[in-house]
Amino acid sequence: MLKVTVPEQRWIDLVGPVDGVDLQVWDMSGPLADPVGVTFVVSPYQVTSAGYDNLASATDATAFQLLSAGYEHALPFLQPGMELANARGVHDSATAELAATLILAAQRRLPDYLESEGERRWDDRRFEPGLADKKVMIIGYGEIGQAIARRLLPFETTLTAVASRDRDGDELVDHIHALDDVDTLLPEQDVVVLIVPLTDATERLVDADFLARMKKGALLVNVARGRVVDTDALVDAVASGHVRAALDVTDPEPLPDGHPLLALDGVLEVPHLGGLTDAFAPGPPG
Amino acid sequence: MLKVTVPEQRWIDLVGPVDGVDLQVWDMSGPLADPVGVTFVVSPYQVTSAGYDNLASATDATAFQLLSAGYEHALPFLQPGMELANARGVHDSATAELAATLILAAQRRLPDYLESEGERRWDDRRFEPGLADKKVMIIGYGEIGQAIARRLLPFETTLTAVASRDRDGDELVDHIHALDDVDTLLPEQDVVVLIVPLTDATERLVDADFLARMKKGALLVNVARGRVVDTDALVDAVASGHVRAALDVTDPEPLPDGHPLLALDGVLEVPHLGGLTDAFAPGPPG
Repeated sequence: MLKVTVPEQRWIDLVGPVDGVDLQVWDMSGPLADPVGVTFVVSPYQVTSAGYDNLASATDATAFQLLSAGYEHALPFLQPGMELANARGVHDSATAELAATLILAAQRRLPDYLESEGERRWDDRRFEPGLADKKVMIIGYGEIGQAIARRLLPFETTLTAVASRDRDGDELVDHIHALDDVDTLLPEQDVVVLIVPLTDATERLVDADFLARMKKGALLVNVARGRVVDTDALVDAVASGHVRAALDVTDPEPLPDGHPLLALDGVLEVPHLGGLTDAFAPGPPG
Repeated sequence: MLKVTVPEQRWIDLVGPVDGVDLQVWDMSGPLADPVGVTFVVSPYQVTSAGYDNLASATDATAFQLLSAGYEHALPFLQPGMELANARGVHDSATAELAATLILAAQRRLPDYLESEGERRWDDRRFEPGLADKKVMIIGYGEIGQAIARRLLPFETTLTAVASRDRDGDELVDHIHALDDVDTLLPEQDVVVLIVPLTDATERLVDADFLARMKKGALLVNVARGRVVDTDALVDAVASGHVRAALDVTDPEPLPDGHPLLALDGVLEVPHLGGLTDAFAPGPPG
């Protein structure tokens, strides 16, 4: 009998009985009461550091399943002999959808118009930049990067895909450029989307120099990880009017009240919504 | 020599000299000073009623070119013998882009998150409905309707197209339904997009009965004309929590300060931005 923990009873009800599998509920908020023989742990969607500390109580576990695609935050808590599985693919659609939402909202200046609506007044109509005819660079061309490309192409954009190494294109882009080419390609881009994993190579990839190379008025979109961007440098670049930003992720995260990224015009910020849609499960998990 | 008026000197500069065509500037804000031989009038992008009244001063004009796709507002001002040309096609891209922007922003609840950002605080993360797996009905399947369909398909939507008469589908939808079928198809739709011209058949198409047939929590998107929707009925349907709305156009327009459509949670409203992007012209017209 394979013993597996899942974070909520609802999951057991949804899956139903499975031959040879014993499903138990453990949400990781405290130590696992009866760890004997529990070899597979499925985490809740969002786990606190205290929750991760409790992973040590799953003494027999050889596999730990995350529900997020990003996994760097879980690495320090893995126990000896425990393999990590991330939820690659699960959030592609919702994250790509959010990237498109942020780009469109920023290009059509929705925050300004919604501010007027909040004041219950009809705003002046203005010409906005829009997305059609714009050059969009997608940095990080894995499955989510492709899902973003697929959604942006019908908006009459010109796409440039960037991945860790130079390779042939696919049905969406002619060619996939290496990260080394970004410096050269950056100055002509109207929109730059970050969807790289957080690694030593990508941490603070977007620094003052990167931002200075961006076209004046261009939009930086981060749906990757906050630490891919140097926050202080971004605050300076937006405050000076050089670039705009639309951020699903930030460093630090959550942002403290009154943080410059929450206060600056020219930054559209949402609280790490990436995969949080009902595409994730039929009805929101509790 | 064909005498043509255009609304700004900039247009003459952009077009350059054309053999056999005499381009003059007239912005319609006063009577045409020298109407003799002026046969073709190009309107400014936005014309006031007073501006339209001045059309009577173009006594030799046989053609009047609008810069909008909608034209019902110009009909009362046409002079005898004057033909009207609308700007069909010019705004397809920007209007379809705005429809997608409004749908995505409403589905991912951007207004709520931006409100928190306006208060300079990090909002709680919630599961939002998203657009993937949703059923979207496009009522009005002309060129803009098609442009909307093309943009929404990669978001993993199921599309239902509706036009004045039943006909075969295209590369985007299997079938195009007649307006008569809407009542039957409506209850299963998550999103309903209006992009019909304003005619006797479409004025107040969306009334209390239509809204009552919509699925609870569904989103009504109007990028057509304000008068396609009965405003009072929509206010009631949103206030009761039955539907949500994202509106580029309203009746009346502009909305007076404090109007219920500006005050209601559940309505995302922008001030008739449809075609207002730089896809319209290289750089905003003055």
